[in-house]
Amino acid sequence: MDLNSDLGESFGRWVLGDDEAMLELVTSANVACGFHAGDPSTLRRTCASAARWGVAVGAQVGYRDLAGFGRRFIDVAPAELAADVIYQIGALDGMCRVAGTSVRYVKPHGALYNTAVHHTAQAQAVVDAVRDYDKSLPVLGLPGSELLRLAEAAGLRTVREFFVDRGYTPQGTLVPRSEPGALLEDPDEVAERVLRMVSAGSVVAVDGSAVEVRAESACVHGDSPGAVAMARAVRDRLEAAGVALRPFVGGPS
Amino acid sequence: MDLNSDLGESFGRWVLGDDEAMLELVTSANVACGFHAGDPSTLRRTCASAARWGVAVGAQVGYRDLAGFGRRFIDVAPAELAADVIYQIGALDGMCRVAGTSVRYVKPHGALYNTAVHHTAQAQAVVDAVRDYDKSLPVLGLPGSELLRLAEAAGLRTVREFFVDRGYTPQGTLVPRSEPGALLEDPDEVAERVLRMVSAGSVVAVDGSAVEVRAESACVHGDSPGAVAMARAVRDRLEAAGVALRPFVGGPS
Amino acid sequence: MDLNSDLGESFGRWVLGDDEAMLELVTSANVACGFHAGDPSTLRRTCASAARWGVAVGAQVGYRDLAGFGRRFIDVAPAELAADVIYQIGALDGMCRVAGTSVRYVKPHGALYNTAVHHTAQAQAVVDAVRDYDKSLPVLGLPGSELLRLAEAAGLRTVREFFVDRGYTPQGTLVPRSEPGALLEDPDEVAERVLRMVSAGSVVAVDGSAVEVRAESACVHGDSPGAVAMARAVRDRLEAAGVALRPFVGGPS
Amino acid sequence: MDLNSDLGESFGRWVLGDDEAMLELVTSANVACGFHAGDPSTLRRTCASAARWGVAVGAQVGYRDLAGFGRRFIDVAPAELAADVIYQIGALDGMCRVAGTSVRYVKPHGALYNTAVHHTAQAQAVVDAVRDYDKSLPVLGLPGSELLRLAEAAGLRTVREFFVDRGYTPQGTLVPRSEPGALLEDPDEVAERVLRMVSAGSVVAVDGSAVEVRAESACVHGDSPGAVAMARAVRDRLEAAGVALRPFVGGPS
Repeated sequence: MDLNSDLGESFGRWVLGDDEAMLELVTSANVACGFHAGDPSTLRRTCASAARWGVAVGAQVGYRDLAGFGRRFIDVAPAELAADVIYQIGALDGMCRVAGTSVRYVKPHGALYNTAVHHTAQAQAVVDAVRDYDKSLPVLGLPGSELLRLAEAAGLRTVREFFVDRGYTPQGTLVPRSEPGALLEDPDEVAERVLRMVSAGSVVAVDGSAVEVRAESACVHGDSPGAVAMARAVRDRLEAAGVALRPFVGGPS
Repeated sequence: MDLNSDLGESFGRWVLGDDEAMLELVTSANVACGFHAGDPSTLRRTCASAARWGVAVGAQVGYRDLAGFGRRFIDVAPAELAADVIYQIGALDGMCRVAGTSVRYVKPHGALYNTAVHHTAQAQAVVDAVRDYDKSLPVLGLPGSELLRLAEAAGLRTVREFFVDRGYTPQGTLVPRSEPGALLEDPDEVAERVLRMVSAGSVVAVDGSAVEVRAESACVHGDSPGAVAMARAVRDRLEAAGVALRPFVGGPS
Repeated sequence: MDLNSDLGESFGRWVLGDDEAMLELVTSANVACGFHAGDPSTLRRTCASAARWGVAVGAQVGYRDLAGFGRRFIDVAPAELAADVIYQIGALDGMCRVAGTSVRYVKPHGALYNTAVHHTAQAQAVVDAVRDYDKSLPVLGLPGSELLRLAEAAGLRTVREFFVDRGYTPQGTLVPRSEPGALLEDPDEVAERVLRMVSAGSVVAVDGSAVEVRAESACVHGDSPGAVAMARAVRDRLEAAGVALRPFVGGPS
Repeated sequence: MDLNSDLGESFGRWVLGDDEAMLELVTSANVACGFHAGDPSTLRRTCASAARWGVAVGAQVGYRDLAGFGRRFIDVAPAELAADVIYQIGALDGMCRVAGTSVRYVKPHGALYNTAVHHTAQAQAVVDAVRDYDKSLPVLGLPGSELLRLAEAAGLRTVREFFVDRGYTPQGTLVPRSEPGALLEDPDEVAERVLRMVSAGSVVAVDGSAVEVRAESACVHGDSPGAVAMARAVRDRLEAAGVALRPFVGGPS
């Protein structure tokens, strides 16, 4: 099993999250690439630290929108979006290179992540960018999304993720943030839930039913106040149950 | 002999220079990396075109300053500058990669170029970035600059350039832009001058004396109104005289 | 009758349009505010020049998107959009103030203009911003748009504009740019068309029928190659026919 | 006596300092203007809150440098710097206007503050901008600086400030941050020191001697961990000693 988290999201004077603490706990780091967050010095430090901890670095590509932290949909033309994504992967790969590693996978951030669930043209642009850059790079995303469907069609490896602190509907989709049960906050409950997903392939939905969820990676938040405690609880619970934690991308980093 | 020019300096709606026309004429393209100019779509197009023409792509790294086009000194701390440079080289290398080529050398832009002539700490930061990224990348710069001195000390290959349309003092330095004779505008005169530099290793200084100038690359401007005409005149004159034009970086691009 | 045009859209090294030539011809200048274009030095120069020519300055507010020139829809939350619009009006008003004038009206730019035609929440955010800033400022926009409807409902003065070089459907809407007849390029034809709109309140639609168009301002493009020639043709034709050209906002600027 | 602090320095997702808590304690708020920090929504909120608390808003103008938080010297040409400053004052004034107040003074931020202490051309550019915008606006700055000297020469009101948590040399200048005694961290000691400055016009320098310091405003930091506690200690100590705290700009806000 893999634990992934969004890191490298500070920008200059503004610090977000505790990258050092999280890198001790996760196995894959979705590192920002400078368009929604992540100044070069932060990225260099985060990539170097990830390399030291043996954590796989993924390019967390987003819209060019520092003011909106990449959380606002932008109607970018597909060809421009593809160029934006290649630029970001390349920049982060440069940071990985000087740290003795490389970008190992790609995961869209924020509004681009959400858009790529259903917006075929933008999802295809992301897929095109990854394939043109390096067709051996896996794409990490939401099960059932356009992004993963198109990535698979393009011959890319796809990796499905599970959100450890989000409620699920009986249909296996996420409970919208505006509804009750959308967010789970108790680290122990969350840890137990992840263990069940790993061992039984299912989670308890908001209505109490069991819903099948298959994923190769569990996403823990990197920037909320309790992020480190929750990541630690998940990691401890899985290890106590004998679940090996390692990046979904294998081999030497 | 090599002809280099600054290209890829458009940004979104704003077009600067005629990259397509220049890529037919030069042998090395100093392509902007997004910090002083160059949106990803422009960079992708320019790198693809350079690859088609067999023109070597160099990373034209600059200060993060779109509003100032990288022409204003910024007192960036060396460690931050090094990270900024790595980020830019990596981003452009990504664009080159999808075009089937790679970044072949590094040349600072504008105020960073001028600063690296004398500012040891910033020049060293650029050198450190290049060496950490890829110690086989040459650095293109001003003869006698701190940048080339430190690059050489770090074991990097250095390449000296000659400015085809700038006046030289009897000491071999550039005539400041504020003084008479700083800029040459006649394409034929410029072409003749370059030929003399190539064949005799000297140019006529503003006072009429001959001054020794040794360089492996001649820099033609990419964004002035007469840029294309001047580049063509230089190329034609050199070829007519039997001077072979090719990138200073050899081998397959 | 009023002639308006988008000006102040250069940014640092990148020049767009010929503001000086246009300011001799138009009566209202929609000046960029720095979010999609317009560095402070450009804005200051354009506002000073507008004041000298007696041209009314309007705040051409847009999305925060230099790379996209404000031409890409961004799903900004209404409260944030309102703050963005106030910021832009205030900034431009500062430039007007030092030029001895003030912002006299507001017109959204690019994708925000198009979005405000139908997107109620964003149109309302623009209206709220204008009303909160200065409820005496008119809003310039497309006849029939949500923007003008909501502005009127909020008690703001609304001013309708006509696009001199765009084809109209028999229903009085613009022919989409992807269809034949979308763009008119002949200055004389365009000038004749504007005169007819002014004198008869109608234009010839793409199918040859006459369609009613009532507008208090005619919009001429500021940044296309033939912009100056077209603006001059329109101005000359209207003046020859005895149509007085003056800003739709009256009184001392 | 006046207490001032730097506020409004969050940017989008990145939060810095506790503006609400500080606005209960200070009498003047140096609010960022968007160039080094401060997105429009943050600025609007901060200005509205300042208006509610009767705190005077000053425009904290800086270099255009989000990545460097305005802490890096930029060699901006004076005319461009003046335009940048006017743009920032105008934008913040717009935010004040919708909050029922207005910009009441100007204080440069970070590297621009430090540069304006000795760099005549940039200091003059700031002064020119303030005078052109509104010659009734005071300039807040360091006693003995070029900025205050030139502002006074231009007929502007000048206000001198004292840094509550910085050590002073026997000559009355600040102890450089790299030396011992540069920073004071004990709230009670700091509070006592401010009281002495207010009542006796002097502080104890690092060498134990008394040094004369005359200032109309005391600057407390807004973004350090102990900022709120220190501001509260200073305010409580001054009030207990019967020192009235009020903005240095009088009258209705």
